Amino acid sequence: MPPVISFIARPNHGKTTLLEKLLAELSRRGLRVGVIKHHVHDFEFDKKGKDTWRHKQAGAHTVILSSPAGIGMTRDVEYDIPIPELVARYFHDMDLVCTEGYKWEGYPKVEVFRRAIGGEPLAGRNATWAAFVSDARIATDLPCFGLDDISPLADFLIATYMKKRCVTSSLEGANGEIALDASEARYLENVVLTTLAALRPQEDLRHLTLTICQHDC
Amino acid sequence: MPPVISFIARPNHGKTTLLEKLLAELSRRGLRVGVIKHHVHDFEFDKKGKDTWRHKQAGAHTVILSSPAGIGMTRDVEYDIPIPELVARYFHDMDLVCTEGYKWEGYPKVEVFRRAIGGEPLAGRNATWAAFVSDARIATDLPCFGLDDISPLADFLIATYMKKRCVTSSLEGANGEIALDASEARYLENVVLTTLAALRPQEDLRHLTLTICQHDC
Repeated sequence: MPPVISFIARPNHGKTTLLEKLLAELSRRGLRVGVIKHHVHDFEFDKKGKDTWRHKQAGAHTVILSSPAGIGMTRDVEYDIPIPELVARYFHDMDLVCTEGYKWEGYPKVEVFRRAIGGEPLAGRNATWAAFVSDARIATDLPCFGLDDISPLADFLIATYMKKRCVTSSLEGANGEIALDASEARYLENVVLTTLAALRPQEDLRHLTLTICQHDC
Repeated sequence: MPPVISFIARPNHGKTTLLEKLLAELSRRGLRVGVIKHHVHDFEFDKKGKDTWRHKQAGAHTVILSSPAGIGMTRDVEYDIPIPELVARYFHDMDLVCTEGYKWEGYPKVEVFRRAIGGEPLAGRNATWAAFVSDARIATDLPCFGLDDISPLADFLIATYMKKRCVTSSLEGANGEIALDASEARYLENVVLTTLAALRPQEDLRHLTLTICQHDC
C-alpha cells in the first residue's frame, strides 16, 4: 500500500496551491501520485448534460468514461469511505497518496500556515504532525519549509515515508500453476494486500494463503 | 464478474435515451448497474477550475473526490483499457454492466434502430447480436422490443444473462486463519477473481490457491 500524507491548513492558507506545486515536482521526478479530497456537501463531479451524466442521473450505480488517455468515473457509495479503503480500491498502483484535508485521521500531516492570512497554526494537537510549510518562523522541532521550498519538501517526504517492500507469490488454478509475469504478479499482490490491509489493518500480512472454490448454482 | 451487455446503434438512433430508460427500470428493481462509455477524443471529465481539476492538471496521476454519497475520479491510463479490465477494476460489485458503443467487442449486443432516422440496422454482422429495440418491424429471429418496451427488455436481459455463482474461500495469515465476515469475503473473492479473469481470461478459475510472502528490503 502506498504511503499516505495529509496536507492540512486553516481555510485559505493555501493547501491547494501548495499541493499543485508539490504534485508538479513529484510528477517531474517520475512518481505516480494520487490525491484524495474530501467533500461533505452535495456531490457533483461530471459535467451536466453529458451522456455519462445522463446515465448516472437515470439510475446507474457506477459510470465510467474510458479513453486511451484517461478514465473518469462517478459512483454511488453507501457510506463515507475511509482512506484505507479508498487507497486499496483506487491507489494500489501509486507511489504516494496525498490527501487534502482529513485532519482528524492518523496519517502524517504537513500543515500549511501563512502568517499573512493570520491566526495560529493548528499544529501541536498530536504526534502525527510531520512538517510545516509557512511564510513565518514557527516554534517547533519539526522540519519547516518555505512556501516555495518545494524540492526540499519533496526530498523530505520521499526520504521519510517511501519505503520499499519485496513480495513473492505463487498461484495455482484448477489446472495447475498460473504463470503471471512480474507486472501482473505485482498488480495481483497489490490488489490482495491492499484489500486485506483495509479489511484487517491489524493483521500481520507477511505471509498469507488464500484458497477460493466456486461452482455454478 | 458481472455480465456485460453492449448497446449499439448508428449515430442518432437513440442509444443514450434507451439506456436512460433501461437504467431507471433496472435501478427500480434494485439492481446495481454500471455503465462504460468509450471516448476517443480529448479526455475531459471533471469541472475546470475545481480543486480536483487543479490537482490533476498539476501532475497527479489519479484524483478522487470522496463524499458520503458518491465518489468522483479521474486518472491517467497508459493504454485504452479493455472492457474485462475495466470490469475487474471498477465493476466487480455490480449486478450488470452496460456499455454504450464498443460494437466491435464480443459481448451480447442490443441494437437500437429507429426507422424514422433512416438507413438500415447494423445487425447480422455476427452471432453476438442479442436483440433489437426499434420503431420498425425488423426481419430477424432475434427478440425485438419497441422503443418503450422497457420492462420486457429488462425481463429478457435478466433472464438471459444474469447467472449466479457460489463461492467459498479460506484465508491464512502469518498468525493463522484470518476470519472475514460474509460481505468481506465476497468483496475479497470478487477482487481476486475479477482481477485474475482480466489477466488470464482463458484460465479455469473454479479452484485456486494464492500464496503471498513479503518482507522489508
